This record gives sequence, structure tokens and C-alpha cells, in this order.
Amino acid sequence: MEIIYALFLFTLLSSSHASVNDFCVADTEASDSPIGYPCKPVSKITSDDFVFHGFVAGNTNRSNPVALTPAFVTQFPALNGLGVSAARLDLAQGGTVPMHTHPGATELVIILEGEITAGFLTPTSAYSKTLKSGDLIVFPQGMLHFLVNSGKGKASAFLTFSSANPGAQLLDNLLFSNDLPSSLVARTTFLDLEEVKKLKARFGGRG
Amino acid sequence: MEIIYALFLFTLLSSSHASVNDFCVADTEASDSPIGYPCKPVSKITSDDFVFHGFVAGNTNRSNPVALTPAFVTQFPALNGLGVSAARLDLAQGGTVPMHTHPGATELVIILEGEITAGFLTPTSAYSKTLKSGDLIVFPQGMLHFLVNSGKGKASAFLTFSSANPGAQLLDNLLFSNDLPSSLVARTTFLDLEEVKKLKARFGGRG
Amino acid sequence: MEIIYALFLFTLLSSSHASVNDFCVADTEASDSPIGYPCKPVSKITSDDFVFHGFVAGNTNRSNPVALTPAFVTQFPALNGLGVSAARLDLAQGGTVPMHTHPGATELVIILEGEITAGFLTPTSAYSKTLKSGDLIVFPQGMLHFLVNSGKGKASAFLTFSSANPGAQLLDNLLFSNDLPSSLVARTTFLDLEEVKKLKARFGGRG
Amino acid sequence: MEIIYALFLFTLLSSSHASVNDFCVADTEASDSPIGYPCKPVSKITSDDFVFHGFVAGNTNRSNPVALTPAFVTQFPALNGLGVSAARLDLAQGGTVPMHTHPGATELVIILEGEITAGFLTPTSAYSKTLKSGDLIVFPQGMLHFLVNSGKGKASAFLTFSSANPGAQLLDNLLFSNDLPSSLVARTTFLDLEEVKKLKARFGGRG
Amino acid sequence: MEIIYALFLFTLLSSSHASVNDFCVADTEASDSPIGYPCKPVSKITSDDFVFHGFVAGNTNRSNPVALTPAFVTQFPALNGLGVSAARLDLAQGGTVPMHTHPGATELVIILEGEITAGFLTPTSAYSKTLKSGDLIVFPQGMLHFLVNSGKGKASAFLTFSSANPGAQLLDNLLFSNDLPSSLVARTTFLDLEEVKKLKARFGGRG
Amino acid sequence: MEIIYALFLFTLLSSSHASVNDFCVADTEASDSPIGYPCKPVSKITSDDFVFHGFVAGNTNRSNPVALTPAFVTQFPALNGLGVSAARLDLAQGGTVPMHTHPGATELVIILEGEITAGFLTPTSAYSKTLKSGDLIVFPQGMLHFLVNSGKGKASAFLTFSSANPGAQLLDNLLFSNDLPSSLVARTTFLDLEEVKKLKARFGGRG
Repeated sequence: MEIIYALFLFTLLSSSHASVNDFCVADTEASDSPIGYPCKPVSKITSDDFVFHGFVAGNTNRSNPVALTPAFVTQFPALNGLGVSAARLDLAQGGTVPMHTHPGATELVIILEGEITAGFLTPTSAYSKTLKSGDLIVFPQGMLHFLVNSGKGKASAFLTFSSANPGAQLLDNLLFSNDLPSSLVARTTFLDLEEVKKLKARFGGRG
Repeated sequence: MEIIYALFLFTLLSSSHASVNDFCVADTEASDSPIGYPCKPVSKITSDDFVFHGFVAGNTNRSNPVALTPAFVTQFPALNGLGVSAARLDLAQGGTVPMHTHPGATELVIILEGEITAGFLTPTSAYSKTLKSGDLIVFPQGMLHFLVNSGKGKASAFLTFSSANPGAQLLDNLLFSNDLPSSLVARTTFLDLEEVKKLKARFGGRG
Repeated sequence: MEIIYALFLFTLLSSSHASVNDFCVADTEASDSPIGYPCKPVSKITSDDFVFHGFVAGNTNRSNPVALTPAFVTQFPALNGLGVSAARLDLAQGGTVPMHTHPGATELVIILEGEITAGFLTPTSAYSKTLKSGDLIVFPQGMLHFLVNSGKGKASAFLTFSSANPGAQLLDNLLFSNDLPSSLVARTTFLDLEEVKKLKARFGGRG
Repeated sequence: MEIIYALFLFTLLSSSHASVNDFCVADTEASDSPIGYPCKPVSKITSDDFVFHGFVAGNTNRSNPVALTPAFVTQFPALNGLGVSAARLDLAQGGTVPMHTHPGATELVIILEGEITAGFLTPTSAYSKTLKSGDLIVFPQGMLHFLVNSGKGKASAFLTFSSANPGAQLLDNLLFSNDLPSSLVARTTFLDLEEVKKLKARFGGRG
Repeated sequence: MEIIYALFLFTLLSSSHASVNDFCVADTEASDSPIGYPCKPVSKITSDDFVFHGFVAGNTNRSNPVALTPAFVTQFPALNGLGVSAARLDLAQGGTVPMHTHPGATELVIILEGEITAGFLTPTSAYSKTLKSGDLIVFPQGMLHFLVNSGKGKASAFLTFSSANPGAQLLDNLLFSNDLPSSLVARTTFLDLEEVKKLKARFGGRG
Repeated sequence: MEIIYALFLFTLLSSSHASVNDFCVADTEASDSPIGYPCKPVSKITSDDFVFHGFVAGNTNRSNPVALTPAFVTQFPALNGLGVSAARLDLAQGGTVPMHTHPGATELVIILEGEITAGFLTPTSAYSKTLKSGDLIVFPQGMLHFLVNSGKGKASAFLTFSSANPGAQLLDNLLFSNDLPSSLVARTTFLDLEEVKKLKARFGGRG
């Protein structure tokens, strides 16, 4: 009888056999598309695909003592198509995450330890707070935002995103690491030309 | 004059030439993606691609007398990217579709003949009704639901879904056909260990 | 001990208390929005909200012997936000569903009885087939399509849609029931002016 | 110190390295999918990929003096996945854009010069206006619409769309360039059979 | 001159004045919709709206020593429409989060301390791992999943979701807290009737 | 006979009666939601709702000789829910549109007259070109971008967006019109403190 029973189950499973889209672990060797990567075959997926290691305190032994450990789709292919990702942020004393945006993702920050002052900017207001362990702050999609260690020791946080691939567009990289003429950058930012040239030198830009 | 006229049409058609996305019949041999399959070339599409045969009464000569005939994207590649699919369900007397979910699809059931008792479960309520020919019931996306033949003869229904690929996750298959330790399944379901072991044996699980 | 246990459950439920969006039965008295209607309070929802009655053979005793019974969000408010709906179509011998579109919905047709010839039109091809009981045909979103009873008796079908509110834009209603000048309709359709005037008279248009 | 600083930037950039999806210039040689084309490698992208040339006055020296210059994803691959496209329309005196739909796109028209009468049709109303330079009109997604030069000189407009690939389904092409039997077209449009045959001859249809 | 300048800015800002949708803090007193709540007026928004307090160790002094602190849209209205939320989970030794689903959300778990064994179930495989501090695991949308403290001390984790309102459907609550007849629950789960009755008594169900 | 015929049409129209969502002209007096505004009743809609006037050359008699005329959902409520909008931009000689983003919209620019140099910035490249009448450039969603009149006379362009409400976040407004401490702005932008203070004075910021 159980054999007949198994046949019934098999029949129903013939529909779920198609359910590849319950998840779609990225084949990151293949070409990306606007919605993400093609899927690895289900037959090659194991439990290890759904696990990521390494959200430990990063190395902050730098002039700007910041470490970011991303778990985006590139590092964690199981996130492909699932609309979520995360990162760990470590800020030694004095550490700063400068102004940046994630063009297609909201960021939700969970403060783990220390004191972090964070905020985002809109044309009419800056929304900013000093946060401690156990606090959360949200930066809506595409908003220019920052985080600084405003305390006396180290600080750390988990960052989560409403996208498998949030990117990170640091304002200084955008403005000062390119080869646009400094005069054009100055004209479109209202910064002094000398300031632009100084920051271009610092961030690797030319022109 | 008509030739010149045709040129005008050709010009406008040069835009619609790009309109491959009006439909995208799946190339199911290619890799899937989070949004579905790549498209077969339009030049290879015929009327037959948009037609599916076989929603006839299924064979219910089984211990659990249930037959399901799916027309999901795997069986009916024209549904790729269109957000809809269907299945035919036949239940002989006593037939049961046990508890299951479709993780990414709402299900709309149209009762064809017989009497079916169906419902879905939420943390606060079970919504359940006994239905007859001409009745509809909807199971919102991801809800645990069931259907049983509660009448005296056979029953049948058409199932439609808000996804080209709704899958089907039968609760017993999920819980009892895997190789997780029985003690872990018992611990996370509050079922008795003996019950878990008995159902694991029945559904092909190990551990 | 069970009381303490219930407290634990209550804590977890405090999160699911927010899960109003598992479904959102329409409050059709309130203003619509691009995504649908506001939700009725969950406390007022019963099993009856998820059930629709009346997919029985419609009255086809008319000059064009067609009956359509829709179960769209207006008739079946539980479909609000769920991306699926259905209708029953009855065609007596000679019955015709004339050319029309659903601007925001794919239509999947399940033939119930009789013989129906159906198809949809693209700039480069007409995809059309004669269908019998148990056959399905899909009309991708926004395509102009038709169904006719091409058999010797009555015919019926279930129509399902990838939208809770597919609408129905009958070509003749669009072109001939309005008050645009007949000359403008003729100019933009290449139909003869006399033909336009005749059909305007028939479909209630002016001009 | 700047070198250490650059390391910090590199670390953060390792996240933005994944931000391929900030844009996805189409590899139009690869297979399309329901969401668009796969992406060209970022390393092959230059400024020229984001620029399109040629929105100049089109040649309207035809029996129906209309010219359409599309910049859809096929002509302008950078639009892939970005949900927007455009076209330039030139209408010499007497020019007409006949009734058509874009199944998956809203159209927003900006009148550049001349006088254009334009409108769209719904089952209950025709919304139509005579427009001049500097006016806009919107045709919601999937609506049947038209534009005619109603002035005494030439007219032109920019058309923009809420899709990278709006297609264009001209009603006469749909109805009269196919090989469906004329009697079937007449039956499903309520047009006279003679009218259908005449237009089939004109638009290249058979049957 | 600066005054004229400010006028220019004002002109551009007149467009951004409309940018209410950069964020939409929920007015949770108003009716929900399928996409979330209406927005509070921007004029009433302060920095405090974007901050949530209280991701501290929860009280696990219970028979099942689990504490969950959600920051979903109900608790943190700024998340409305942003597609992300979070929760803190504390598990004392022996603590278990039983089998459950989030019908419309993927869950990404970050292990904070201790040892947690977690996994999700599909019809063909159980994907499960034992995780330590700094590990992540992802449960794709709608999958049945569990977490248990498999270590010797307490454990905690941050849970993040691809939805502002993920809900939580505990399997035992679904199956055993309702008033469906026990025989129907047994029939649709293949559980023994006695087992169903025992669990119904434990979880507050009737029938 | 026509009366009976009209009944048939009425029956089919009973489905399209529900098709409010073919468009949803905003009731901008009501509360916004993440997806847009509630709809005005269809009975109050006229052709005028779908038309916008005023894309004429703007007044550029200013210190920064720029004029922007937006047709976003606030100015043109018919765009509600349709995913597209437009603006007219006029730049007298020397005019500059400084660096800004549209957090949730791609921008497609059509150059009307004059010479405009425009581009957008990514962490690894600046994509920039000098454009003339008839050229288009696209700025993918959320990218920091600029436009300057690089020619000898006036210049103008039409801007179209993949959102009914693209907003506009001018970098200088974001950074220098707020009340964050100047030292914090300097720290998170790497700008000199004196530069920050000077620009704060110019753009109306405090701190």
C-alpha cells in the first residue's frame, strides 16, 4: 500500500519539481541581468550554500580605522533574487563611514556595541541621532547618509539591506576619483577649485 | 502608393520589432533566473506554444485517491513571466489534498463537481468552508491550506495561481521525508518522538 | 506550566499580530489606489469573505448568446492585492466574445465544454487554435484577443487572470460608443466613414 | 598615510564592486528574458553606451506622412532594466498615428511644435484634446490611443514610455495583416465582411 | 545676489517638494493596504521616527526559554514601504524556535553568540547547519524553518527580513490552536488523531 | 434587437466597471502611500485631467540662469501610479544643474537645443558626454549626475523619469542647508572645515 502511496506523492511532487524558484542560488560565473544572476542547478546545492561565515570584528588598524565585511550576492550567492543582504561594520575610536548612498536599497542598521552617530540627508532636513547598543536606524532607499564613531572606544554594527546587491557609492569616490576636469567638478558642486584639486589628489582622480 | 504606405508601417514596426517582451515563451533547457527562463526566439513560436492539452479527469485509482494535473511553466512554457498558471484536481470519494503551501503564489480554486471542504490556517483563525460546484475559494499567498472530498461521490476542481511556477510544499514531505534527526523534528514541532518516527518511516525520511 | 508556555507563544504572536498583509480583503467603500483598496479590519473577516458563489451556467438567451460571470475584486473583495481573479464564460451556439484587451492582465482560459476557437493578435502573427474540453490557451498581457463558439452546441470556459481587476476593453465599445467625430475615428482606423457611422449608431456612439 | 587610506577605500569598494546592477547595459546578442537582456560586462562600458543620437526631424515624405524614431532598448541598450524609453514623432500636414496600444507601457507625450489632436479610449469615455507646443498628454498603460496632426503645418513630439521596450501594436496591423479568415475577423469585430476584405488587401493579410 | 540664488534653488526644490515618497513613515492608525500604510505628514516627522530602541537581551525565563523582540512596521513605522525589517532573538540553553514560515519574506539570520542549529525544509531536501557567532544563514521566502539552541549556554541572533511586515506563522499555532475538527486535522496531516487532540489541548484549539 | 444587444454589452461591461485601475488620477488632498495617492472618482475625471500645459522656455534671468518646469504627480495628478513623469529644463549661457540624485528614478534626457555637457558618477568611472540637439543621455536610478550649458547660447532639454515622483536631491542642499555641526559635515565629506562653513552660509545651513 505504501508503494501506491508513494506514487501519489510523486504525482504531487511532479508539480513541485518545477519549484526551482523557491530559491535561486546565483551562478556568479554567468552574466548578470537586471534581476540578478541565473540559478545554479538545484542538484548542486547543499546546506553550505545557504550559510556565510565571517561576521567577526574586522581589522581597523588603518588611518581611517574602519572595516566593512559585506555579505552581498557576490560573497553570498544564495541571496540572489531574495531582496536582502547584510554587512558587518567595525569602527575603531575616531572611525568614520563617510557620506554615501546605496542607489537601490534601504539600509537598516543595528548597533552592536559602542556609540555611533548616524543620519541621512534630505533637501529639507537632516535626520540624525546618536545611537547605542541595541538601537536601530533606517536610511531610506537612495538617501545620502553617514555613520561616525562618536564614543570613546570601538563601535560595531550590523547593516542590513533591502537588496541582494546594494552597492556603495562613497561621495568622495564619486566626486574626486574620476578624470573629469576639476573645473567642472567645482562648477557642479560649488566647491572651491582648490578644494577640488586637493581632494582629487587625495582620492586618485585626475584632471 | 500602397508600397509607400507599407514603408510607413515598416517604420513603425521597427519599434514593435523589439516587442519580444509582449510574451516570452520559456526556453526551459536554459538556466532559470529569479524571474523565470530566457525566451525562445519569436521566429520559433507557433500557435501551439500558447495551448496546453490534458485537463481531463486524472487517475484516482490509488490508496489516497487524488490526481493533480499541473499546467505550470515547466509543462506549459508560454506561461513564463506572465504570473499565472493552473492545475486540475480530481478527488475520488475520500480523497484528500493534505496540508501544504505555495511559497510565492496565491491559489484560487474553482469547484467543478462534487463537494469539497477546504480552508487555510492563520495564527489566529482557520478559514474553512464546504464548497459545491460553482463555488470559489482563495488561499492567500504562502498560507497553509488543505482540500478534502467531503461528499459522497467524486469531486474535481480547477486551481489557478498568481505565479507561473507555484511549486507545492506538502507539509508531510517537508517534515518527514528528510534526514534530520527525528529528535530535532520532534523538538521543533512539539510532536511525540514516536509519531515523528512513524511518519518518517511512512514518508521515506531517515534519522 | 502551560500558562508560561502560552506566554511564550504570545510573545512570538506579537510579531504575527502585525501580519495583516497576509491578506487584505478590500474595503470597496473606500478610495481605490494604484495597488488596490484599503483593507477591511481583520476582526471583521470570516470564512465567507474568502468564498465566492455563482460560477454556474449564465443566461445566454440573447441576440449574441454570451454570458460572463466575473469574480473580480469588485465582486470578490478577498482578491484585493493577491494578483489573481477569474470569470465563467458561457457561449450558446453561435456565441462570440468579440475582440478585446485586458490592459494589465494575462488571461488563461480553461475550456470546460464544447468547442471554442480562440486567439490573440500581434503585429506579425495571429496565434489561434480550435480548443475542446480540457484545453487551455493563454493570452499574454494586453494582447487583443477573441473567443467564438465554433461548435454545434453550447460551450463554456473558466477564465483566470493575473490581476485582481483585469477590466475588459471591448474594441467596438472603445471605437464606436464614444462621441469622437466619426471622421476622426475613420481617419485613425482606416475604416470607411460609412462603416464607422453604422457602428456608432449600433454601439451608442455620437458624432 | 594615503596608501593606508587607499586600502580603506578599497575595502569599502569591495562591496561596490558588486554593484553591477546600478545599471545593466543590454547584451542584445544574448537571449532576452521577461525582465530584459543579460548585462554587458562593466569593463566594456564607456560613456558612449549611455548616449543615443538621432532625435532629429524624420522623413515624412510618404503617403501617410509620419516618421517615428524610436530609442527603445533595441536601439539604446543602456535602457535595459531601467523602465524608461523615448521616441521622436514627426507628422507632416495631414499625418496620422493610427489607433494602437503599448501593452506594457504608459506613454507620456510632449508636443514640440504644431498642433496635434490626441486621445485614448476607455469603455465608457474617450479622453481627447487638441494640443500645442509645450503641452503634455498621458496615455495610461495598455489604452488604445491615437495622434493626428490637426494643424496647418508640420507637427512633432517626443514620446516617453514607462518601459524600456514598449512595443507598438497598430490596430490595423493586428486586425488586417494576419491570415485569419475574413469571416472570423468580421464576426469578432462586427465590421462588414467587405470592409474586412478590403482592409486585409490593403494591410497585407490573407484569408 | 544670494537671494536670486535662493530663488533658483527654490525652483528646483519645488520639484523635490513632491518627494514625499523618498520615505513614508506609516500612519498606523489609518487603514492598511496591500502595499502598507498611508504616510504621516512630512511636517510631523523627526529624527526619532527613524530610530528604534530595545534590541537588548530579552527575558528568557520561561518553560520554552525564548524571547523575540520584533522591529516590524507595527513597532517601527518608518519601515513602511521600505521592504526591510529586523528582530532580536534570545535563546537560553535548550531554547527552540519551532517550525514556522514568513509567507512573504526571506529571513537572513546573523548569529550573535552561542551555538544555533538552524535549517529550512523543501520537498526534496532539508538544508540545515550548526552555526556560531559571526555566521549567517538565509531562509528563502515562505520556507518552513526552525532554530534551536544546540550549545551549552545562551544564544542570540539578529533576524532581518525582506519585508517591513514579515509576520510569523508558527506551525503548531496554525494546526492546533484553531477550532477545526481534530479528525479533519488528522486527515490532512496524517498525524494520529490522539496526537492531534493532545496538541490541540496544549495549544488552545477546540474540536 | 439592439436593446437585447445592449444588455449583452452591459453584462460584459459589468466587469470593466471595476477597471478603475486602468488609471488612477491622484486625489492629492488625500494621504500619500508608498505606491502613490488614492484615486479621484472616475465620474469626476475629464480629458483635462490627462493634459498638462506649460513646457515653455522658463525664466532664466537669475544668478545661476537655470529654470526647471516639472510635470510630476504633484503638478500632473494623472501620472499617479503610472511610473513616468517629465520636466523641461532651460539653461541660459553658463547655466549649471549641479550634482544631484533622484533616489527612486532613472532619468532620460532629450536635448532640445544648444550644447549640454552631462554625466553621472560611479565609484569606478565618470560617464560624461557633450550633447547637442537630438541627443539623449540616460542617468540610471539613484546615480549622482549633472548638466551644464557648455555652449555659447542658451540650451534646453526635456527630462523624463521612470517614476511619477522622482524628487530631486541637490548635493549642496543636502550637505549645506542643514543644521548638522560643520565639523561633522567636514568629517564625513573630507572637505575642509572652512569650505563647509562657507557653503553652509551660502546655502542656508546652520551649525
